Amino acid sequence: MYAIGVDLGGTKTAAGVVSGDGELLFSDTIPTLSRDGSAAILDATASLVAGLVRRADDAGITVKRVGVGSAGVIDAARGVVASATDAIAGWAGTALTAGLAARLDLPASSVLAVNDVHAHALGEAWTGAAAGTSSSLLVAFGTGVGGSFVLDGAPVLGHRYAGGHVGHFASPYACFDGAPLPCVCGGAGHVEAIASGPAIREAYVRLGGSAPAADTRAVFGLAGSGDAIAARAIAVAAAAAGQAVGGLANILDPEVVLVSGGLADAGERWRQPMEAALRAELLPALTGVPVRPAALGNTAAIVGAARLVLEPADAGCAEFTSALTYRRN
Amino acid sequence: MYAIGVDLGGTKTAAGVVSGDGELLFSDTIPTLSRDGSAAILDATASLVAGLVRRADDAGITVKRVGVGSAGVIDAARGVVASATDAIAGWAGTALTAGLAARLDLPASSVLAVNDVHAHALGEAWTGAAAGTSSSLLVAFGTGVGGSFVLDGAPVLGHRYAGGHVGHFASPYACFDGAPLPCVCGGAGHVEAIASGPAIREAYVRLGGSAPAADTRAVFGLAGSGDAIAARAIAVAAAAAGQAVGGLANILDPEVVLVSGGLADAGERWRQPMEAALRAELLPALTGVPVRPAALGNTAAIVGAARLVLEPADAGCAEFTSALTYRRN
Repeated sequence: MYAIGVDLGGTKTAAGVVSGDGELLFSDTIPTLSRDGSAAILDATASLVAGLVRRADDAGITVKRVGVGSAGVIDAARGVVASATDAIAGWAGTALTAGLAARLDLPASSVLAVNDVHAHALGEAWTGAAAGTSSSLLVAFGTGVGGSFVLDGAPVLGHRYAGGHVGHFASPYACFDGAPLPCVCGGAGHVEAIASGPAIREAYVRLGGSAPAADTRAVFGLAGSGDAIAARAIAVAAAAAGQAVGGLANILDPEVVLVSGGLADAGERWRQPMEAALRAELLPALTGVPVRPAALGNTAAIVGAARLVLEPADAGCAEFTSALTYRRN
Repeated sequence: MYAIGVDLGGTKTAAGVVSGDGELLFSDTIPTLSRDGSAAILDATASLVAGLVRRADDAGITVKRVGVGSAGVIDAARGVVASATDAIAGWAGTALTAGLAARLDLPASSVLAVNDVHAHALGEAWTGAAAGTSSSLLVAFGTGVGGSFVLDGAPVLGHRYAGGHVGHFASPYACFDGAPLPCVCGGAGHVEAIASGPAIREAYVRLGGSAPAADTRAVFGLAGSGDAIAARAIAVAAAAAGQAVGGLANILDPEVVLVSGGLADAGERWRQPMEAALRAELLPALTGVPVRPAALGNTAAIVGAARLVLEPADAGCAEFTSALTYRRN
């Protein structure tokens, strides 16, 4: 049993052939045509998948199912993009699974989709850093802050498929001069407004940083060169991130916590204060909760997306969507 | 099919006979012997249950199962109090279900227990304000702040049975003079430190309130008489409560949100600013999420506790614990 998993993000789309035990056999990546409209994206994604199907076929492997982890709020029951930011123009409303199924000449039921962070977390829960656990909370800190709570092998998608928006609750750190910092969601004072990657650059400027800092990476570079304001911007973001994840752990009590995303990969300058703040926030009952980096890197969402359409070894074929739809809640 | 549900709190213990469709037939209440040790509490609770069994028997109803919602973190698999505050002396470590089963001469498997807030939420999800929904988030604001996320008919208990500690994440309101307010959990700056009932009285004093205010109710009375500081203490607590619940809704995306507890019952002075703050916090995808008061009042935890040991109509008897153990995660 094999499936193709697709990780469709704002800048690139990666896909791969995944075996029934979670092994990624081969993969390919294309730029996402994020300004060209959804038909162009579906065309390009279908071509990407078709190429992998052919490669699999050459290797004697038949693949007839496709799982997608996509940017946006994804209505998993209908396979439609319920809403999305303008990172991909015209993405909201796209009939994602039907569009791919038609282009690939597959039955509509052979293509499933969820939000990419849910796919990411599902991949880690299946074969990554949370493998073997009965519940895990993954929080990703990068361009935005997102997360997913995976319970008994399925991400909790939420009633409106909006579950996992863990960047959009209040953070005491997300204020300046007594006013809450604006958040990209339209609200203010949220975790994402202080703990995302872009928020670090904004904080550097806000705190009076004088060196040119084009992006988050530049602020890390400045901090490494001894710029105290850069170091402070990163430390505050890390503390806000850890406090938020610690609070989420108190609420959800997952078996394991995974922290991922660009900031988690940025080294000890972020990770150490993040984990200190996280542990300071925990209730006594949560002391000792494992906090781990994600293990699958860029392949997590591909593997997790494929998992959507790969039934577990102990389930019959007819039930292959049950874990997903059950968790729709 | 009937069962007895027990709501065992720090000050009183209520129990009742509940039918398979969630009707509370009759009930009784005793004071919890919270200073007398766990054996005395188990003795008294068993007597309470035995009295109800006899009453049921007189009415021609046989009851052989007992569900308990208890104060403390309850290890639902073992039926043991994993940890507890000193509201009930010596409660931590108590073999709750085994102790009751032995005293009632029931098989150990006929008695199940969860934390009382989980029982409360389960009752509301079964026959109360969240009946018919596939997911609900209940948050109770009273002596403490607690909650439970009920998914597909079962509360998400958490890996260490500590899930639902929604009073223990950071609130921007929970600080004074630039320092986070101490929280009863040992941490600081948490929602419970500003949004619980006792926190309102503390805020009144902290803000310079000069009238005698023995308890939360007294602060509401003062606010009703035009005391601006009392009104402010309540408004801040309500805003903190609403902001917290709104953030939780963004994270979990429940079908419906229930707000309960003593503060929710205190009228519009708390409810209106709470709901305004809640709605201000919501992501666009969550706009329109129903926010309701709990409907079952004091009986919710009794009904929910009974539900633990009452199988749904479509499940076989042998599976009656499956919904609970499955959700242990």
